[in-house]
Amino acid sequence: MSLQAVLDRIDADQDAALERLFALLRIQSVSTDPAYAPHCVAAADWLVEDLRSLGFEASRRDTPGHPMVVAHGGTTGPHYLFYGHYDVQPVDPLNLWDSPPFEPVLRDTPKGRVISARGANDDKGQLMTFMEALRAWVTVYGGLPCRLTMLFEGEEESGSPSLVPFMQENAAELKAEMAMICDTGMWDRETPAISTMLRGMVGLQVTVHAADRDLHSGFYGGAAINPIRVLSKALAAMHDDSGRVTLDGFYDGVPDLAPEIKAQWNALNFDEAAFLGEVGLSVPAGEQGFTALEQTWARPTAEVNGIWGGYTGEGFKTVLPAEAHAKVTFRLVGDQDPEAVAEAFKAHIRAHLPADCTATFIEKTGAKATVLPVDAPEFAKAREALSQEWPKPAAFVGCGGSIPIAGHFQEILGMDALMIGFGQADDALHSPNEKYDLASFQKGARSWARVLHALCG
Amino acid sequence: MSLQAVLDRIDADQDAALERLFALLRIQSVSTDPAYAPHCVAAADWLVEDLRSLGFEASRRDTPGHPMVVAHGGTTGPHYLFYGHYDVQPVDPLNLWDSPPFEPVLRDTPKGRVISARGANDDKGQLMTFMEALRAWVTVYGGLPCRLTMLFEGEEESGSPSLVPFMQENAAELKAEMAMICDTGMWDRETPAISTMLRGMVGLQVTVHAADRDLHSGFYGGAAINPIRVLSKALAAMHDDSGRVTLDGFYDGVPDLAPEIKAQWNALNFDEAAFLGEVGLSVPAGEQGFTALEQTWARPTAEVNGIWGGYTGEGFKTVLPAEAHAKVTFRLVGDQDPEAVAEAFKAHIRAHLPADCTATFIEKTGAKATVLPVDAPEFAKAREALSQEWPKPAAFVGCGGSIPIAGHFQEILGMDALMIGFGQADDALHSPNEKYDLASFQKGARSWARVLHALCG
Repeated sequence: MSLQAVLDRIDADQDAALERLFALLRIQSVSTDPAYAPHCVAAADWLVEDLRSLGFEASRRDTPGHPMVVAHGGTTGPHYLFYGHYDVQPVDPLNLWDSPPFEPVLRDTPKGRVISARGANDDKGQLMTFMEALRAWVTVYGGLPCRLTMLFEGEEESGSPSLVPFMQENAAELKAEMAMICDTGMWDRETPAISTMLRGMVGLQVTVHAADRDLHSGFYGGAAINPIRVLSKALAAMHDDSGRVTLDGFYDGVPDLAPEIKAQWNALNFDEAAFLGEVGLSVPAGEQGFTALEQTWARPTAEVNGIWGGYTGEGFKTVLPAEAHAKVTFRLVGDQDPEAVAEAFKAHIRAHLPADCTATFIEKTGAKATVLPVDAPEFAKAREALSQEWPKPAAFVGCGGSIPIAGHFQEILGMDALMIGFGQADDALHSPNEKYDLASFQKGARSWARVLHALCG
Repeated sequence: MSLQAVLDRIDADQDAALERLFALLRIQSVSTDPAYAPHCVAAADWLVEDLRSLGFEASRRDTPGHPMVVAHGGTTGPHYLFYGHYDVQPVDPLNLWDSPPFEPVLRDTPKGRVISARGANDDKGQLMTFMEALRAWVTVYGGLPCRLTMLFEGEEESGSPSLVPFMQENAAELKAEMAMICDTGMWDRETPAISTMLRGMVGLQVTVHAADRDLHSGFYGGAAINPIRVLSKALAAMHDDSGRVTLDGFYDGVPDLAPEIKAQWNALNFDEAAFLGEVGLSVPAGEQGFTALEQTWARPTAEVNGIWGGYTGEGFKTVLPAEAHAKVTFRLVGDQDPEAVAEAFKAHIRAHLPADCTATFIEKTGAKATVLPVDAPEFAKAREALSQEWPKPAAFVGCGGSIPIAGHFQEILGMDALMIGFGQADDALHSPNEKYDLASFQKGARSWARVLHALCG
C-alpha cells in the first residue's frame, strides 16, 4: 500500500473537504434545546449519507433522545470502532460572535488560518478528519483500510443519556478490537498527543441542617449553632497543610506515577508559569511534592465547586440560617472507587457535626478513572505514525478532565480507546467564536491516514 | 399627688384610648417604600395634634427622609425625653394576614385579647402607652408630671438615616436628664423588664479572590487554588473548639459579668431547653462555661450570616470559582471597639491567604455595645414602680440585639436611657398578624403612670 498516494489525495481534495465540513457545520444540531431536535436528525442523516458514499452500510438509529449513527464497513484486517459526536453546544451569548455561529467562515489569525463556527472543533471538525482520511483511502484503493464500525452520537453535549443503554443493547454489534476517538487536543501546535489517562469523578451536594428555621442573631447569636460554621469547618478539614486530602482511605488505589511516564511528562517541558500565569496565578496549589502537570493529570482532588447559605444579597442581614450547602466533586485517578470516596466524604462530614446538626446528601453518579494500556502495540504504532506527520514526536499525555465514553467502552464493551485529536488550547470550545485550525483539519486527516496505515497494515 | 386617681382615669378611659390607637394604626406609615411617604407625614401630623391636645408645644420637623415629631411640655421637676417611632414595617406577604394589616381589630386568643394590626406593638401600640399615661395625668391634674421632651421618628424601620444628623443639629434642644424608650419587651407575661445591656455590632463582607476567571476543574483542578477552600479555612479558624473567638484582641474590653447581675439572671429561671427547643435545638452552641442567656446577652459573637461562591444551581458544575464571599457580623459587649474588631477580622483573613489570593472587604458602620447604669437611682425607682403593677417584680435584662438609639443618646446627647416596653415574645414583629396584647396596652399605660410618678416625684 502506498501511504503517500493517500496523503497526496487528501492534499488534492482539500477544497472539497472543507465544503463538506462547512455543510455539516451549517446544520444547527444543538442537543440541549428540544427546539433543535430536527436539526440533530438532519445532522445524523447527513452523516448516514456520507458514510454510504464511502461504502459503509450505515443507518440512523433512533433513541429516546437524539439518534445514533452506526455504520459497518471493510471486510479484512483488524476491527476498529471510531467514535465522534455530531451535536454541538448552544451558541449563547450570540452577540459575542464575530460571525454567525452556523455560517462557517475561514479567518486569518496571527497563528494561522482557522475555521470559525460552532462545532468547528467540537466535534464536527474533529470527526471529519477521520472521514476525510477514509475518503482518500477509498478513492485511492477502492475500499476501506480494514474492518471499521462507526458510531456517532448526538447527545454528547447534553450528558449522553441514551449512550449507555444503546451500548448495552447493541454490545455485540459495537464491540471491536479497539476504539478510536477524535475529541481531544494536541499538546501544542507542533506536538500531537495520545491521551492515556483520564481522571474519573464523583460529586456530592451536602446540606448541613441546624435549627428548624432561620434565626435572628440578636436573639440567638451565641447560643444557636450556625450551620455555615459547621460546614466551613468540615470543608476546611478536607485538606491538610500539605494539600493532601484527609478523607479516610481516599488514596486507596492511587498509583505512583511510573518512572517512564514521569520522564516523558518531564520531557514535555510544560511551562507551569505560563499555565498558571494565563489565569492570574503563580504557585501550584495542590499536593506538595508534585508538579502542576502531575497535580492535574495524575493526582486526585477534592474541590468545593459551590457553597451557599444564609443571606447573600446587598447589605447585611443578621440571620443565623437553618441550613448551609456545598457542592463538592472529587477527581479520581488509578483504581480509586467513586462509591468509597463518596462514603468517605459523608463520614467526614458526619464526623464534624456537633449536637443538633444533621447532614443530607445528593450524589451524582460517579465514574472511575480511565487508564489506557500505553504498552499495547497499537499505542506505539499510533505514536510513531503521528510523529511522522508533525514537527515533534507524539506525546502520551494525561487529562485532568473526565471523558466518560472511554470508560464506557472499557466497562461495557471491554475495549480500550486510542484518543487522538487535533484541537488547540485556544479553540474556544463551548464559547463564542469556536474555531479549528485549518492545519488541524488538514494534517488531522493526514494523521489518521498514517495511523490507519500503521494499524490496519 | 394621687397616683391612684391617674390609674383609675386610665382604666375608665380604655375604650377611647383604644379608639385613638386604632386611628393611628389605620395610617399606612410604611417607611421603606417611598409610595407611602404621604402616610408617614399623616402619622407625624396625627401625633403633633395629639401632643398639642396634651398641652405640648409640638411640631413636625421635616428631614431629608420622613419627618420627626418634637414636642416640649411641663415646667417643673426633672427633664426626661421620651422616644418612639411611628413608622412600621412593610406588610408582605399580605396573604398570610388573618385580617387587613391597616384595619386594626380586637381578637380573642388562648392567651387573652389582642390588638391585631401592623404596628400594634412596633411601635405605635408601645408609644401610645406613654401618651395615654400622660393624658390621664393631664386630665386628673391639669398638667404634665414634669418637664418632658417628646421625640418620634419615622425612619426606624428603614435604618434611621436622618436620626443622627437630626440629633446632632438639635442636641441642645433634645438633651434631657435621661431618655425613656418604649420599644422592647417584657421578660414574660407576668414579669416586666428594663433592658440594661444591648450588644453592639460590626459587620464585614469579605471576598477572597484567586484566579482572574472561573476555571474548569478538569483542566485546573489540583493545581489552581480554590477560594472557597481558602475562605472556609479562614472562617473555620475564627472559633476554637471551646467556642471562643480566636481573632487577635477580640476579648479586649469584654467584662466579666457582675456577680449581682449573674444572680439576677439566674433568678429569672430562664428555660434554656424551651428557648432552644422552640427552634429545634437542644445544646447551647456558644462559648463553653456560659449559659445560653449569658451567651446571648453578655458574650460577644462572630457569626457568618451568609456565604456564597461558585455554582449553586441544580446539578453539578465542575467549576473552580474566581471568588468566594461571606458576610460576617460580630455582636459586641462591654467596651469592645467595633473598629478594632473589624481590623482583627481583616488581619485574620489575610493571615489565612495563601499565595495568589487576595481579600477585599466591605464594612458596615459599627456600633459599640450599650451598657446602662443600673446603679443610677432612676433604674431602682422605675423597677420598683413596675413591680407594683405586675404579678412579678421587674427584671433587669440583657438584650442580644442592637438598639442603636440608646447608643446614640449616650454618644450624642450624653444621656442614658430607661428602656421599658410591654411586648411579648409572640407579638410577630415584622411578620404577618403582628399583635399587641390588650393587657400590654392597658397595663403598659398604668406602668408608665407609675414610673412617672416615681421619677417626677
